[in-house]
Amino acid sequence: MFKIAILGGGVVGSGVADILIDKSKALSERFNKDISLKYVLDIRDMTGTKYEPYYTNDKEVVFGDDEIKLIVVTIGGLDLAADFCRRALKSGRHVVTSNKEVVAAVGCELTLLADENNVRFLYEASAGGGIPIIRPLNLCLASNDIYEINGILNGTTNYILTCMYQDRLSFDVALKNAQAAGYAEANPSADVDGFDAARKIAILSSISYNKFVDYKDVKCMGIRDVIYDDHEFAAGAGYAIKLIAGSRNTDKGVTISVEPKLVPKTNMLAAVNSVYNAVLVKGSYTGDTLMYGQGAGKHPTASAVVGDIIDVLTDACKQSIPGFVNSNAVVIEDKEETSKYYVRISIENHDNESDELKAATVKCFGNGASFLGASLSNNNIAALITDMCTAEEFDKKLSDFCDITGAKAEYKLKVIN
Amino acid sequence: MFKIAILGGGVVGSGVADILIDKSKALSERFNKDISLKYVLDIRDMTGTKYEPYYTNDKEVVFGDDEIKLIVVTIGGLDLAADFCRRALKSGRHVVTSNKEVVAAVGCELTLLADENNVRFLYEASAGGGIPIIRPLNLCLASNDIYEINGILNGTTNYILTCMYQDRLSFDVALKNAQAAGYAEANPSADVDGFDAARKIAILSSISYNKFVDYKDVKCMGIRDVIYDDHEFAAGAGYAIKLIAGSRNTDKGVTISVEPKLVPKTNMLAAVNSVYNAVLVKGSYTGDTLMYGQGAGKHPTASAVVGDIIDVLTDACKQSIPGFVNSNAVVIEDKEETSKYYVRISIENHDNESDELKAATVKCFGNGASFLGASLSNNNIAALITDMCTAEEFDKKLSDFCDITGAKAEYKLKVIN
Repeated sequence: MFKIAILGGGVVGSGVADILIDKSKALSERFNKDISLKYVLDIRDMTGTKYEPYYTNDKEVVFGDDEIKLIVVTIGGLDLAADFCRRALKSGRHVVTSNKEVVAAVGCELTLLADENNVRFLYEASAGGGIPIIRPLNLCLASNDIYEINGILNGTTNYILTCMYQDRLSFDVALKNAQAAGYAEANPSADVDGFDAARKIAILSSISYNKFVDYKDVKCMGIRDVIYDDHEFAAGAGYAIKLIAGSRNTDKGVTISVEPKLVPKTNMLAAVNSVYNAVLVKGSYTGDTLMYGQGAGKHPTASAVVGDIIDVLTDACKQSIPGFVNSNAVVIEDKEETSKYYVRISIENHDNESDELKAATVKCFGNGASFLGASLSNNNIAALITDMCTAEEFDKKLSDFCDITGAKAEYKLKVIN
Repeated sequence: MFKIAILGGGVVGSGVADILIDKSKALSERFNKDISLKYVLDIRDMTGTKYEPYYTNDKEVVFGDDEIKLIVVTIGGLDLAADFCRRALKSGRHVVTSNKEVVAAVGCELTLLADENNVRFLYEASAGGGIPIIRPLNLCLASNDIYEINGILNGTTNYILTCMYQDRLSFDVALKNAQAAGYAEANPSADVDGFDAARKIAILSSISYNKFVDYKDVKCMGIRDVIYDDHEFAAGAGYAIKLIAGSRNTDKGVTISVEPKLVPKTNMLAAVNSVYNAVLVKGSYTGDTLMYGQGAGKHPTASAVVGDIIDVLTDACKQSIPGFVNSNAVVIEDKEETSKYYVRISIENHDNESDELKAATVKCFGNGASFLGASLSNNNIAALITDMCTAEEFDKKLSDFCDITGAKAEYKLKVIN
């Protein structure tokens, strides 16, 4: 018997319980082990729900039960969840978690603790929800040097950005709609300011580059300042605006950021809409590989948790995932990195100045730059996309452009090539 | 020591050799096993190449060497490759292959043979090249009931279709370009008639539905009859034409086909261009999941082979992949399945008949049907998309439409919803 306890009967935890209740028999047959759910621990009373036969509110019952071989940690927050993971691992139980805060903050400690106790610590559901990503990165692509990752790792912000463009909404209205649809929290900061995606890209980068990347080093810029007109300008020029959680592994160190960027429509990431997530990985042998699916939601996330449980069952890769426990990555800003930039400008007395602005755009930003014209709805707003330049060059050029034209730079975004 | 032999030093085999030569040290350290390449067997003389230190043309040297623990089978064709797999497995060596003909034809026999000899038979590279797909299907998504797969599984045909649309080419010219670019064979039949994709979708369906699907049961329709105008009609209506290898697992049996279909631009598969492949999997818990990457090519495919080697090394999932060795799937045509259909028609004396054809389209095919107008380049060609109907209803409605209008149906494709 291989009995399982779930700590936290919220959205993901109850989803894991659903799958284990429905599928334990089939999984036991397929993988030739006798698995079943024994406990769902929650402080809320679950009497009268389908989880009642498993429900307990006493963690000592769970930790005192020798039949429990694997503990699923699906409660949110950092401290209590991390303590549950530690205690479970020290008591010789495997731990599977969907809690990205725990993985990003103490993944290293917990991986070492798992190794010491000859059990496993797995967290496929912590980044990309239902998308198989951590296991492919760790195993299937293991012969590659992965050198770049660009992901849409937060469903809430992708939903907001998609609605803003498709329904011509302001950020505030789109956020309210997302809250009404249950896709955004009352306090949306973790999503819209990029902190959730920052943890996920730190986790994926640690695994891919095989060195620990601290989520606190991720440069974060959220989507609060995107306006509808930005989407219109971008679409007109062949781009979509997406909140990109990205990193690159260079000789000098790792660059890592979460920020809205313009993505060309020829890039698969531009086609990722609504609450869907995707991760585009560049490997030395495979070239571009993309994995796409539901990055959140009860059953998609729960199915990733159950995938980890199966991994433990089948002894697949008895080793821990190495990324976290190796040397720390040096996180840098790559000053030599070049990019095109999108700039939204405000201009007064715009009438008939279009030719002048067009000429100034090319003069200041190079032959590959293009002036995108004024907004259809507001004649005082215009936008341009520069030619390739470094961040330092860009600042200088933009300052020149504003001096020449009298325009004021309102908003700047990087453009993915 | 864990020494490896490669049988077949062609494109994929030499790619595997490249990776093993470059990465054996790093992989040995990462996975804590001492692996290295010992032989590359080929009938061609490899003296003077970088593979010379490993080269042999004597298969008895390979099979007689007890240091060889794993044999990579990268030669093409069925009979010799299958014999090599059998002999390797019987002699207690693990086998990793990229040969989809072998897997589709005798995958069941070889899986059983591996089980008998307590070794493993793996074939990640046989479908989807460098895309991690077989392992995610088998493991990560194992708690899901997968009920539908739609894939772009042949890079050659996707390249041809992409060029036809983007460069306004006929099939014949696009095929010649693909041959010149090295993306299509002199005899392109296996690709353009769908037989290559048929083997791949049979493999993926067997794994996903956990029952053996015979590739000989796959209904195959290639892309030879697609004309440029079809792309133009489809694009105008918000679709892209893709060669879709698809299957569904229903209560009554498995439906499976390879055929060009219209894919709505809101579907991620519509964004897959050039030689790239992608597989969109529908699971009961995960919903839609898509994996995208290079479906062919030396190093992408080789990296999938090396992924399997690592899988053997790390004992990940010591079990064989079960799909092939279970009961055979019943392959059916689902007569109740409904779909929209695209029809290209030829009409004489088309002038000013547009209103009549539009009215007849709605009258015959329902309110959701739409007449797409005549081709810009050829006034005698027009197209329409029907409302949802079964195949039988469609035939009847189309016959009525042709009777009423005098139009002749030239080409018919299913439309993905």
